[in-house]
Amino acid sequence: MNAAADGLGRLSINQKTIRQWSLPELVEGCARAGVPGVGLWRGPVREYGVEAAERLVRAAGLMVTSLCRGGFLTASDPAERARALADNRAAIEEAATLGTDTLVLVSGGLPAGSRDLRGARERVADALGELGPYAARLGVRLAIEPLHPMYAADRCVVSTLAQALDLAERYPSDRVGVVVDTYHLWWDDAVARQIARAGAGLRIAAFQVADWVTPLPEGVLLGRGQLGDGSVDLRWFREQVAAAGYDGPVEVEIFNPALWARDGAEVLAEIAERYRAHVL
Amino acid sequence: MNAAADGLGRLSINQKTIRQWSLPELVEGCARAGVPGVGLWRGPVREYGVEAAERLVRAAGLMVTSLCRGGFLTASDPAERARALADNRAAIEEAATLGTDTLVLVSGGLPAGSRDLRGARERVADALGELGPYAARLGVRLAIEPLHPMYAADRCVVSTLAQALDLAERYPSDRVGVVVDTYHLWWDDAVARQIARAGAGLRIAAFQVADWVTPLPEGVLLGRGQLGDGSVDLRWFREQVAAAGYDGPVEVEIFNPALWARDGAEVLAEIAERYRAHVL
Repeated sequence: MNAAADGLGRLSINQKTIRQWSLPELVEGCARAGVPGVGLWRGPVREYGVEAAERLVRAAGLMVTSLCRGGFLTASDPAERARALADNRAAIEEAATLGTDTLVLVSGGLPAGSRDLRGARERVADALGELGPYAARLGVRLAIEPLHPMYAADRCVVSTLAQALDLAERYPSDRVGVVVDTYHLWWDDAVARQIARAGAGLRIAAFQVADWVTPLPEGVLLGRGQLGDGSVDLRWFREQVAAAGYDGPVEVEIFNPALWARDGAEVLAEIAERYRAHVL
Repeated sequence: MNAAADGLGRLSINQKTIRQWSLPELVEGCARAGVPGVGLWRGPVREYGVEAAERLVRAAGLMVTSLCRGGFLTASDPAERARALADNRAAIEEAATLGTDTLVLVSGGLPAGSRDLRGARERVADALGELGPYAARLGVRLAIEPLHPMYAADRCVVSTLAQALDLAERYPSDRVGVVVDTYHLWWDDAVARQIARAGAGLRIAAFQVADWVTPLPEGVLLGRGQLGDGSVDLRWFREQVAAAGYDGPVEVEIFNPALWARDGAEVLAEIAERYRAHVL
């Protein structure tokens, strides 16, 4: 199947979207369905072997659009912070080995017992300064992902695209970019302006799509919706990033147990269909 | 007990925080504890009788700091919209009868099947224009409450203080104000600037406090934390609204089944203690 011909030429499937598939199943399934990209996660990639994963993906003619994820850079304890930085250097190396130029960073939440959001955000900024040069040397860009504000305490103190750009713009655009993810940003009335700002500064490192569905499940981690099932105007978002000059991969990243319970190939076919209907 | 002397002079208890108490129990409990204010809800007030509620509160020497809530103004269907406006006029009348000048408005979410956030937000703005003059005539101010972005789809399309102010500032400040609620706004790195803007424009109609605790429960409605139990720097918030010129009530509004399962007087005593330790 010719991916470009049927509109899937920029589609990428994040590994966790169909996590019932092993890495070889994912690669084979995407290749068969004409989906040209995959977004990978460090855990399953290391289990399979980073170099072996790179060979597998390349042999199938696919592209690794991003590696998830580095980050968790908010610790104030020096030893913990040193461990986090070392882990991020390893993530940068893994991204380079996989041949992707995009390492997604989730900044981390508040340290236990802390209420100092501003301090945590400054530690993220400092860490970008420490990691950026090493990443650039390896051809990898750090991609800060603003997560929905409901994760600000326990997962990610960077909650808006404006904030991610404030952080990124302290550093050269080839070192630090941002992730535009519809699930995290759809509610923000400033997002169109911030997408334009990100595009003008060449900061859009990745564009990820998922829909927003309610009610949210306990813990709010696994409630992302299949494209078209929720409240997000996905096409509007795609048009905004396009108008901002972004023509890179569109990565589908959905964490949803209902999708994980189904046959992987069936889920992938449904995603392709929904992508055509709601994103293109 | 002298409320001012022991630091509770501005404290108000929102009725839903101790909803195991009937209205008379709440009024008696607050009076006994030296808490001078209560924030009331339309449902229990109407059950008790609006005028009777006013007499009860006044006889105890308490003040009604706000009435929750009007709003839900996003319907696009004309009949539904007319019903919503009529209901809000009734809420304005109830607030006037209760002797409070503050009617809290929760804007409403997206209509079923809609993805048009911008349209829904415009309908809220239009409704404020329609309701404002009537409210002002009755001595009541419409207080737009930005709710946390996790409620944008199903409950409130107004998600930040900046957005609430953009709406409010279309109208005179004696008609439309905003609610500053720590639970909804704590994550926002722009909130200090926006509180200053709200204060400068005399737009702060109410200041509500609750803490942010994780994990969030399913549906994310009843997960608010007791003061001091979570991630919010409550004292910082109180200082911000004070610096912006606000010296009105500090209303504790916590929806939490663990508090509801306990003895009301014990919960109230704990709130007073936490208020002194974490807010004052």
